Amino acid sequence: VIRLALKLPPEGSHVFIGAGLLDELPEHVLERVPAAHYGIVTDSHVAEKYAQPLAAALRAERVRADVVSFTAGEGQKSRTTWATLTDALLARRLGRDGCIIALGGGVACDLGGFVAATYMRGLPCVQVPTSLLAMIDASIGGKTAVDVPAGKNLVGAFLQPHLVAIDPLALGTLPERELRAGLAEAVKHGAIADGEYLRWIGQTAKPLLAREPQPLAHLIRRSVEIKAAVVQADPVERGVRAVLNFGHTVAHAIEALSAYAVPHGYAVAIGMIAEAEIGTAAGVTAEGTADELRAILHGLGLPVALPAGLAPADILTAAASDKKARATRIRYALLERVGGTVTDDAGAHTVEVADDIALRALGRCLPRERREA
Amino acid sequence: VIRLALKLPPEGSHVFIGAGLLDELPEHVLERVPAAHYGIVTDSHVAEKYAQPLAAALRAERVRADVVSFTAGEGQKSRTTWATLTDALLARRLGRDGCIIALGGGVACDLGGFVAATYMRGLPCVQVPTSLLAMIDASIGGKTAVDVPAGKNLVGAFLQPHLVAIDPLALGTLPERELRAGLAEAVKHGAIADGEYLRWIGQTAKPLLAREPQPLAHLIRRSVEIKAAVVQADPVERGVRAVLNFGHTVAHAIEALSAYAVPHGYAVAIGMIAEAEIGTAAGVTAEGTADELRAILHGLGLPVALPAGLAPADILTAAASDKKARATRIRYALLERVGGTVTDDAGAHTVEVADDIALRALGRCLPRERREA
Repeated sequence: VIRLALKLPPEGSHVFIGAGLLDELPEHVLERVPAAHYGIVTDSHVAEKYAQPLAAALRAERVRADVVSFTAGEGQKSRTTWATLTDALLARRLGRDGCIIALGGGVACDLGGFVAATYMRGLPCVQVPTSLLAMIDASIGGKTAVDVPAGKNLVGAFLQPHLVAIDPLALGTLPERELRAGLAEAVKHGAIADGEYLRWIGQTAKPLLAREPQPLAHLIRRSVEIKAAVVQADPVERGVRAVLNFGHTVAHAIEALSAYAVPHGYAVAIGMIAEAEIGTAAGVTAEGTADELRAILHGLGLPVALPAGLAPADILTAAASDKKARATRIRYALLERVGGTVTDDAGAHTVEVADDIALRALGRCLPRERREA
Repeated sequence: VIRLALKLPPEGSHVFIGAGLLDELPEHVLERVPAAHYGIVTDSHVAEKYAQPLAAALRAERVRADVVSFTAGEGQKSRTTWATLTDALLARRLGRDGCIIALGGGVACDLGGFVAATYMRGLPCVQVPTSLLAMIDASIGGKTAVDVPAGKNLVGAFLQPHLVAIDPLALGTLPERELRAGLAEAVKHGAIADGEYLRWIGQTAKPLLAREPQPLAHLIRRSVEIKAAVVQADPVERGVRAVLNFGHTVAHAIEALSAYAVPHGYAVAIGMIAEAEIGTAAGVTAEGTADELRAILHGLGLPVALPAGLAPADILTAAASDKKARATRIRYALLERVGGTVTDDAGAHTVEVADDIALRALGRCLPRERREA
């Protein structure tokens, strides 16, 4: 088992990674986050397979454990589901001496984390991500949230989990699309922080897609290390954490314009290429960066062009109306080159790019047939 | 203006107290918590009187300011109202560079604080309490919460306000009952931490009830100092902060049994006497403590006996079923004497008292006619 200790307020966070870790989970949980009562928040996909056995194993250690679950699906990441899960745990008399275990994909991690952050003003939390995206993104960094009508992730809290337990074997049954979507975020980690890691992902595409545990464990570890380093430098996202948004300004626009038919990781793949083109057009990103990303993402079976029917101008309109936007001019987190991001003279980690420059760059991301038309 | 700087994570908290402070509020807010956009969360009682003029004054300083209000009343301290207020601020496009100002009584402070704690994962918050209870209790210490069907304050978060602005002149129009309810919490502060202050409150009952600004300002300052000292020692309520619950185990039971017809401060007045009797019966609280409290609370026009029709056994049943209870045996935060609380050999700040002892002590708190019957 790989053990990483993250220095994060208020009490630090531990990440354990290991094939077969789920089987040893009760002992790790009891040792690192002792509690009288565990409330396991999970989704219907993994409730029977992982959550109920975990609860039974904890009860065998003479602590209380209850499972509350919701129907798997992005639409459940809502205040309504959060309230229902909270009330179910209150009905089971989970008290202040309890602990929340969020077990499942990104939705379970985000929802369970927000339940923990707000339950009796905050309980300790264990994250047990079972999708690749959740393992290397949602479970690391303490962001919890639900979606509201005005937009995604607009209501939430920061809560650093005491323990994140990652078992690459859980990826054995992950749908192919979700595996690829997670790999897109790993590519992002390489792109912003470690060119060597990025190229390793490109060279290891086949074993990764074949879900070989050893390369998957390495990928998870390296991505967690990169994300953790950024998060430790900026726990509540006031500065450098913005670099994690590389690809995401365009990705969020694509997601919104597709009414979330395009999965997040797929949108991030396209967004990274688009923002590499934008960065090059703006003179801050090295030539050839978009092409390098395009080749790697293509090798991972990820989309590398804007969805058919989506015009560059629509992307910019959607990005400008993003609810979290600070200003009317669009800012992007951009690469300087593969493996490093841009910081401007004022220390800002995002760059303002004029719409006409961005438009031309986005034109280079249209599907081939439309570019040639 | 009295300025207190509290050392509280993550960034400290400032408390300003001064007659007429509301008129100077925009400059203090802009200086201490600069933001591009202020979202003022307030109740219908003070929206016109204080919130709209504050918004206008802020707009005159060329920042954005919007007021969102709810119908005054305890019943509004709900997830539903929290969601409605959040969505109203999102509709006004309050962004991450915004700040929440919670202005009003305890409900506005708790609700506005919880909106701030969860809006885009947390915005800075200014508390502007306009009731005495909110000035010396709800606005200090960073507890925010809403009520849920299972109980009061079971969903919430800790968020230390950057600034708490208290204007004793706002108490001029406070209903008499609410003034007295606030004074009960001030008595509690004296009882747990400062016997001299407690006796001063007893001697100053008339000027306080006449709302003379000078003694009110002194009371607010001293109570804030006492509460702040406890909160600084234990920001997220893991230990010594329990002493603030003196009187509250019984008070919560009285509130629940009366279906919240007995106001919180009134229930605390009765609860303090009851828990002084319980402490004396258990051998930890000095003889005569309950009588001293009884005299002072009576002088403030507060109730000093259990409500008619409420049996001691019911109190214990209700206290034992409190959702936050750690164990089945009831624990109380007890006085050693007026001005100081009990800590047991293990360092615990609450004491377990057997029900038969508590029952006899509660018998001494029945209304006179029932005790003699």
